[in-house]
Amino acid sequence: MSSSFDVAAVGNAIVDVLAPASDEFLSGENLAKGAMMLIDAERASSLYTCMAAGVEASGGSAGNTVAGVASLGGRAAYVGKVADDTLGEVFRHDITAIGVHFRPTPSKGPEGTGRCLVNVTEDGQRTMCTYLGAANALTPEDVDPQLIEAAEIIYLEGYLFDPPAAREAFAKAAGIGRKAGRRVALTLSDAFVVERHRDALLDFIGANADIVFANEAEAMALFQTQDFDEALKALSAKVATVVVTRGAQGSVIVTGGATTAVEAAPVGKVVDTTGAGDQYAAGVLYGLARHLDPRTCGRLGALAAVEVIAHYGPRPQTPLKALAEAAGLI
Amino acid sequence: MSSSFDVAAVGNAIVDVLAPASDEFLSGENLAKGAMMLIDAERASSLYTCMAAGVEASGGSAGNTVAGVASLGGRAAYVGKVADDTLGEVFRHDITAIGVHFRPTPSKGPEGTGRCLVNVTEDGQRTMCTYLGAANALTPEDVDPQLIEAAEIIYLEGYLFDPPAAREAFAKAAGIGRKAGRRVALTLSDAFVVERHRDALLDFIGANADIVFANEAEAMALFQTQDFDEALKALSAKVATVVVTRGAQGSVIVTGGATTAVEAAPVGKVVDTTGAGDQYAAGVLYGLARHLDPRTCGRLGALAAVEVIAHYGPRPQTPLKALAEAAGLI
Repeated sequence: MSSSFDVAAVGNAIVDVLAPASDEFLSGENLAKGAMMLIDAERASSLYTCMAAGVEASGGSAGNTVAGVASLGGRAAYVGKVADDTLGEVFRHDITAIGVHFRPTPSKGPEGTGRCLVNVTEDGQRTMCTYLGAANALTPEDVDPQLIEAAEIIYLEGYLFDPPAAREAFAKAAGIGRKAGRRVALTLSDAFVVERHRDALLDFIGANADIVFANEAEAMALFQTQDFDEALKALSAKVATVVVTRGAQGSVIVTGGATTAVEAAPVGKVVDTTGAGDQYAAGVLYGLARHLDPRTCGRLGALAAVEVIAHYGPRPQTPLKALAEAAGLI
Repeated sequence: MSSSFDVAAVGNAIVDVLAPASDEFLSGENLAKGAMMLIDAERASSLYTCMAAGVEASGGSAGNTVAGVASLGGRAAYVGKVADDTLGEVFRHDITAIGVHFRPTPSKGPEGTGRCLVNVTEDGQRTMCTYLGAANALTPEDVDPQLIEAAEIIYLEGYLFDPPAAREAFAKAAGIGRKAGRRVALTLSDAFVVERHRDALLDFIGANADIVFANEAEAMALFQTQDFDEALKALSAKVATVVVTRGAQGSVIVTGGATTAVEAAPVGKVVDTTGAGDQYAAGVLYGLARHLDPRTCGRLGALAAVEVIAHYGPRPQTPLKALAEAAGLI
C-alpha cells in the first residue's frame, strides 16, 4: 500500500520554557545535568519561580522530530494530547504551521497542556523538568488506525513509557503499524527512562521495533554495560536498523548487517542543545522513509542537529529542505 | 531625595509571538513592514492562524527597556497591566526574573494578557500587530506614587497614547515625577503612533518631558518634515535631552546645547531587530540615570541593541552588565 505520510509519530505534547542557568543553579535545585525529570504541578510552579527569564517554544521529543521531517519537505503526522488552553493552542499552531498533520481531541481534564522547564547552561547543555499535564491523558482512543496505517514509519518516543495510558497508545500504534507492514521506530529518549523501564523496553524492541534510536548512554543503560561496542552489538542483534548518536564523535548506523559511521557536521557556536537528538532523528527518519543510503540518512540527521543547536528552542528556525538541498543531500 | 530606582517605566504589558515571514506574506496580509498596528481579538486569531511556527517571549516596549536596564545592573521598576492567565504569569515571571520590580494587580476583565504578533522577515525587520487585551485596562490607579517618586527617571512609551485610560496613567506618572523633581523621559515609539497623536504628544513634550527618544522617522513625523536636521533642531528646542537613533548611521544625543554623534556598534548577523530600539533606550537611560557622559550613554545603548538583534526576541539573553564591563563602559 502506498503511504500518505513518511513518518507518523506518537509523543508527549509539551511546550518548552527555555531559560539560561548556571551549574550552581542545577546543583542547588538538585537537577541531574542533561537528564529529563518528571515533576508535578507544585514543583513546576516552584521551579519556574526561581528560573531565569525565558522563552516559550513548542517542544515534545517526537513533536520536534516530525516538525523536522516536515521542515525537510517530508510528509509527517503527529498524535499527542494537549489541553484546551493557551499553550495547547500554541502547540497546535506551531506543529500545524510547519506542515505536520495534527488533529487533536483536547483533553477535558483540569490539567493544563504539558510543559517542560528547560534550564540551558553556558555549555549549551539542557536539563529538563517535565510536568506532563494533559499529555498524561493520551489514551489508545487518540490513536487513529487509518493515520498510522498510512505512514511509512511509525515513530514512538520512549518518554511515553512513563504515563501508563500513553504506553497503551504506544503499543496500539505499534501493533497497527506492524499489521499494516509498516516499519516501527522507537527512540530510547533518556538514560533514566531506560533505567525505569528497561525490561518493558527490551520486550517492546524484541516484539515490535524495526528501527531503534539511542545515544551512547541510553544504549549502554539498556544492556547495563559500560562498554559501548558491547551495547551496540547487543542492540544490533535485536533490531534491523540501529541508529546511535555519539555527540562530537558523530553517529553510527547499523542496518542490514553493515555498519556506517557518520562524522559529526562542523558546529559553530553551541547555544542550546535542546532538540539536537530529536532533529538528528528527523533527518535519519526522512532518509529511511525515502530509502536513502545510511550515509545520507546520517548526514541529513547531522545537518538538522547542527541547525537546531545554534539557536534557542528545539525546532528548526531555518527551513531544513533548503539547507539539505544546498548541501546536495536531497 | 535619593532614589530607589534608576528607571521606573509605564508601558503596555505584552507577550510577543515571533515567527519568520516573507515580504509576500506581509503584503498579502496588508501589513506595513516595520510598523506597529493595533488589531482586535478576531484579527489576532485569524492572523495567528496563517503565521509560521513561532516562539513566545515577553515583550512590550517599556518592559523590554527596563529589562535591559536591569540586565545592565541598574535598578528598575515597571507598571503595566496583565490578565490573570498563562501569558500574564509568563510576563510577570520574566520581568521579575531579570531583576525588575513589578507588583501588578491583574485585570479582572475577560480579555487575556496582551500579545503582539511579530512577523520577522529575512532581513531581520519586524512587523508588529498588537492585540492590547488586558493592557487596555491600565488606569491611573495602577500608578503607585511612591514607586514613581523613588525613580531617577520616569520612562513612558508613546504606545500608551492609544488606550485612553493608559494615557491618563501616563499623565499621572509624569505629573508625580515632575513634582518630585525627577526627570521624565518619553519614547515616540512608532511613526504611526506619532501621526495618530501628534498634537497631544507635542503638548505633552512641551509640558513634561526632560528626555525624548525617537528614531528618524518618528522625529520627522512629529514635525511633519522630510528634513532630519530640521526635526532634530525643532525637538532640541523643546526638550533638554534628545536621543535619536539613525539605524546604521548610529545615533545622536543632544543635551545641554551640545550634540554628540555616536557611531553604530559593529553588527554580526541580524536575526531579529525586535527590541533594538528598546534596548538602545535601556543603555542610554542607564547612563543618564547614573550621570554618565553622552558618548558613554550612546555606546551603552548601541551595545545593548547589538546583543538583542543577534537573536530572536526583544530582551537580552546575555547579561548586559558583563558585556558593558568587558567593553570598558561601566
